[in-house]
Amino acid sequence: MVKTTSESLGWVNTQSYTFAQDKPFETEGGRTLSPVTLAYETYGSLNGDRSNAVLILHALTGDAHAAGWREGDKNPGWWDNIIGPGKAFDTDRYFVVCSNVLGGCRGSTGPASINPSSGKPYALEFPIITVKDMVDAQRHLVDHLGIDKLLAVAGGSMGGMQALQWVASYPDRVRSAIPIATTATHSPQQIAFNEVGRQSIMSDPNWNDGNYYGGVLPAKGLSVARMVGHITYMSDTSMAEKFGRRFKNTRSRFKFDPEFEVEGYLQYRGENFINRFDPNSYLYITKAIDYFDLANGKGLTEILRGIETRFLVIAFKSDWLYPPYQSQEIARACKRAEVETVYAELNSTWGHDAFLIEVEEESHLVKHFLRRVASTALHG
Amino acid sequence: MVKTTSESLGWVNTQSYTFAQDKPFETEGGRTLSPVTLAYETYGSLNGDRSNAVLILHALTGDAHAAGWREGDKNPGWWDNIIGPGKAFDTDRYFVVCSNVLGGCRGSTGPASINPSSGKPYALEFPIITVKDMVDAQRHLVDHLGIDKLLAVAGGSMGGMQALQWVASYPDRVRSAIPIATTATHSPQQIAFNEVGRQSIMSDPNWNDGNYYGGVLPAKGLSVARMVGHITYMSDTSMAEKFGRRFKNTRSRFKFDPEFEVEGYLQYRGENFINRFDPNSYLYITKAIDYFDLANGKGLTEILRGIETRFLVIAFKSDWLYPPYQSQEIARACKRAEVETVYAELNSTWGHDAFLIEVEEESHLVKHFLRRVASTALHG
Repeated sequence: MVKTTSESLGWVNTQSYTFAQDKPFETEGGRTLSPVTLAYETYGSLNGDRSNAVLILHALTGDAHAAGWREGDKNPGWWDNIIGPGKAFDTDRYFVVCSNVLGGCRGSTGPASINPSSGKPYALEFPIITVKDMVDAQRHLVDHLGIDKLLAVAGGSMGGMQALQWVASYPDRVRSAIPIATTATHSPQQIAFNEVGRQSIMSDPNWNDGNYYGGVLPAKGLSVARMVGHITYMSDTSMAEKFGRRFKNTRSRFKFDPEFEVEGYLQYRGENFINRFDPNSYLYITKAIDYFDLANGKGLTEILRGIETRFLVIAFKSDWLYPPYQSQEIARACKRAEVETVYAELNSTWGHDAFLIEVEEESHLVKHFLRRVASTALHG
Repeated sequence: MVKTTSESLGWVNTQSYTFAQDKPFETEGGRTLSPVTLAYETYGSLNGDRSNAVLILHALTGDAHAAGWREGDKNPGWWDNIIGPGKAFDTDRYFVVCSNVLGGCRGSTGPASINPSSGKPYALEFPIITVKDMVDAQRHLVDHLGIDKLLAVAGGSMGGMQALQWVASYPDRVRSAIPIATTATHSPQQIAFNEVGRQSIMSDPNWNDGNYYGGVLPAKGLSVARMVGHITYMSDTSMAEKFGRRFKNTRSRFKFDPEFEVEGYLQYRGENFINRFDPNSYLYITKAIDYFDLANGKGLTEILRGIETRFLVIAFKSDWLYPPYQSQEIARACKRAEVETVYAELNSTWGHDAFLIEVEEESHLVKHFLRRVASTALHG
């Protein structure tokens, strides 16, 4: 955990921006959406020459609320420990923006949004989207905010994929990229875990081919999907440290109810997920991740050659969902492409979750990297 | 794969033995079962002094059919590549026995069996069983076969747990133990994966609190459970080698149908599983594994001290479901307890499945270990 005297941002608001009202947004799959709304939050102030904007990109189940507190919050934003005054993404210095992805369910246009042509939720009429589509939608928001060039794009897991895609799609608009605990190409094992989650949702009879809005939600299917997810976010070690083989209740043995603490934890996390996440969004977003293959047959080095974006690539040793070898491949391709790159592999027993939880070293790396990039941006 | 000129066993038969007709079988949880049937197969011949019997113990979804061919088989028994004339478990030398576990669904008494007191399948009236109960039931079979002392007990995964339990429960009846790709204590991560499988089955409305016999089977719930299982049996590397990011059909993109080869493989494996496995057995057997904790608060070394059983402990480097550190713990405890032990950690990219697939080195180790044990048994 970060030991710091810096404070939280305090109260924040989620805003929204709607575009593609006249000219539809075109997806990579050749479909159109009109209009498109992105929910977003901003922290800190854009400076006079608009050179201090940092775009934070969220993971699979994240949202625009990256830091600070909103009314009714039991917890601050999902990356509050690294975004705020005096923190790594220092809101006294930088204008920090975070938006909910296209396809999401937390204020941005997604399968739960009303399809203007039917007056009903899109459900499976929503087009399959890609990480590139998410980034293209964010580019509209960045234009709207009057930012020509981002100081940095940063995120972990799917957020890191978006950071990489920003560099590939809009290299001239990104001074630096901080992909964390991520990959440039989704592996078959990663696809397989997502497919289990999708099959679990689609096997729930309440899913009803995606048409459950206003009816009974496929809560059990989503719950099992979330349980699988949670196992992959932790590590063998962090589970052993957190739960061991302890029973929830020593008298409950010899039943199929959750008895071990680890079972109770997964059940709780699974069952609560329905309160904040749309099962169809889970299908669309996991599919976008599975399609992610930045090089797409070309070779990552070729994609990166000639790019002036500077990279900070961070991986965690105990992360077995996005193992360090995948981050090493990104860093190696950067170096071969003569792109300025720092690669750091951090010790942590927290597995994939480390990027959200164990942020002390991560903060240190990000803080100093951003200062170096910012000083070049100002003076260079 | 084993390069060998040795032949398969040819045709084999599954037999069954019924006991506990008069005196009920008592489970570790304090319940009773009467009668109990175990399905089993034997290969080779018991020698004159009954000293050449090897008990093979199967994994979660295995059965008594470990080797050879039965009528209608598309494939030979599940460990045919290591059991047979001239193979590691050499049926020219040893009398090999394999039984389906108590709680199973392949001929042994389990939740799908008829409960004599109701005339209907047990379903959830079947008692929760443990690995110790499985071994206690096998002990009845071994008695029936007239074997006082087994030359070896051997198995991978849950089979390895049974081998360890045999040594703990009946140390004087086991000359040697070969636990492979296994653990002495099920970890929270291992429990968590099993719990996902159970929740998937129990979330299927067709599960109907276990009362689906004669009706619609909870096929989708079991399918998702099996998909999760298959991911854990393979490795990141073996999935990459087997499937890569190849599509099943290049024209099928931008749909939620299985598109990647890895998705198609998992779907096929998942959907076919219902044809050979009872969902309630999946619940009972995974629960038995999750309860498995041989030391049970005592310390493994203490359990093993004074035991004359010799150990061959085998682990596979790429096995992340039962990682080598768990086999090392067994081997270390053996050594501390002054039990004669050989520990081998084999290179393989096949993950947990390696013990079934990549048997060349495994065969070599088993063959020579058994010959040494047998020569002591004969002369010692």
